[in-house]
Amino acid sequence: MTRPPPISSRHVFDQALALAPIPATAQTHGRESPRQWQGHTSAAYANMVGPFGGVTAAQALQSVLLHPERLGDPVALTVNFAAALADGAFRVESRPVRTNRSTQHWQVQVSQTDAQGVDSIVLTATAVTAVRRETWSAVDAVMPAVPAPHEVASMQGATRVAWLGRYDLRPCAGSIPTEWNGVEADSLTQLWMRDDPPRPLDFVSLTAMADVFYPRVWRRRARMTPVGTVSMTVYFHAGPAELAAAGEGYLLGQARAQSFFNGYFDQSAELWSEAGQLLATTHQIVYFKE
Amino acid sequence: MTRPPPISSRHVFDQALALAPIPATAQTHGRESPRQWQGHTSAAYANMVGPFGGVTAAQALQSVLLHPERLGDPVALTVNFAAALADGAFRVESRPVRTNRSTQHWQVQVSQTDAQGVDSIVLTATAVTAVRRETWSAVDAVMPAVPAPHEVASMQGATRVAWLGRYDLRPCAGSIPTEWNGVEADSLTQLWMRDDPPRPLDFVSLTAMADVFYPRVWRRRARMTPVGTVSMTVYFHAGPAELAAAGEGYLLGQARAQSFFNGYFDQSAELWSEAGQLLATTHQIVYFKE
Repeated sequence: MTRPPPISSRHVFDQALALAPIPATAQTHGRESPRQWQGHTSAAYANMVGPFGGVTAAQALQSVLLHPERLGDPVALTVNFAAALADGAFRVESRPVRTNRSTQHWQVQVSQTDAQGVDSIVLTATAVTAVRRETWSAVDAVMPAVPAPHEVASMQGATRVAWLGRYDLRPCAGSIPTEWNGVEADSLTQLWMRDDPPRPLDFVSLTAMADVFYPRVWRRRARMTPVGTVSMTVYFHAGPAELAAAGEGYLLGQARAQSFFNGYFDQSAELWSEAGQLLATTHQIVYFKE
Repeated sequence: MTRPPPISSRHVFDQALALAPIPATAQTHGRESPRQWQGHTSAAYANMVGPFGGVTAAQALQSVLLHPERLGDPVALTVNFAAALADGAFRVESRPVRTNRSTQHWQVQVSQTDAQGVDSIVLTATAVTAVRRETWSAVDAVMPAVPAPHEVASMQGATRVAWLGRYDLRPCAGSIPTEWNGVEADSLTQLWMRDDPPRPLDFVSLTAMADVFYPRVWRRRARMTPVGTVSMTVYFHAGPAELAAAGEGYLLGQARAQSFFNGYFDQSAELWSEAGQLLATTHQIVYFKE
């Protein structure tokens, strides 16, 4: 007789992504019905304030992947961080608002109840899932030439925030400034990354890793300023087979900004498998204080 | 006594963007309440099937701009094209789901009623508006060196779809293939664009122009295949003053793809003012048939 492994042996990322179904009321049954789950922020992925946004984005996508009416695999995800999540429980609701022959459109929201019992929305998201068919394919983005992961040192000593300890990050270029002296001049970072301990890649872990880059404005200015991602989009250029092929290997990430303007900057990034497959492109817009 | 100009003298884009308020029921009054408008697709912006998606995206943003509870100006917009709009009337609903001190998060949906009286959602969107403060600013993206607009010929003879006639498009590089012989090799297009007749730039016209590029897969392959944008994001790197400064001048647009994979490709683009200010960056993911 096989039994599921005890919960403590599950990977810490899977523990963080655990969502418990909240039973639907009669009113919400039926086609294209919303489903609700309860989740909990994970101390293992804590950021300076609240949780690492990449895990929150992954939890939003997870609510789509768990929905019994889901059609196909993720093609696009946009997550809007409406407020800082408080450490503790949250509710996620996912709803397929339009189901076509091969594509499906989703709305997701995450809400929390405060100490006064007031509910508020902390995150909204939209997603597109699709049944992909094999077509002509090509990659126009060029994978940067960098040393292999084992030739690059892991980031050390980044112990001020818990979530950084959940990743093995090996910066090849543009690592976080060691001197905050205002003399940086570009916004590019290239780094190898994987879960630590390693975990086979899937859509949710790829989503979390799309948010792994430290704020471009810190890189650009070698100056710290408070920041917060406002909206983040991930386009998936891979199916389950390509993610399985990436397995527990490192991903190469490359991120850069295009504009810093009156309190908001953008970031565009690519994530390649170690073997050179472009798995995702991702974009975000980030608030910065000054 | 001054009177508003008769409707026929309004710019065709403003006519297309006209939304008539649908009175709120008692139930929808109050804080963070949704508002509804009725719009109509514009024959002047017709595409091969249904309307030009850029105008539909602009209509979605317009419903946010018209909402009486709006705080600040657009920072991010994501539009998901859930189904082809039928030519005719549609309803737009916009709702501020979270209002913070200086930012506001929006959900938008567009729906249509079919001949059988069945309502369905044809578009979902999210937006972030914000009151921006002046901060340190910088642009990392490099404006391409191209000839001035008056040195580049306007695209001619593109009369198969009405909306192309609403823009003065002057391709500098990567114009639409004249021979569909399968010998293209990259996915880059650079072009000057403005409304035709000229119209002072604002957030809605900038949104529409973010979708002006023809499908990257046609450029990449010099081969036509059916396509449709699935999701599109616009990040605004300018405020009302910068848009006013761009005025009726041309914008320089640059677009390229990064990945074409099993039925979906991405497009990233930048839009600069003629004077060289980066006004918006925009990304989309597009279905292609084969």
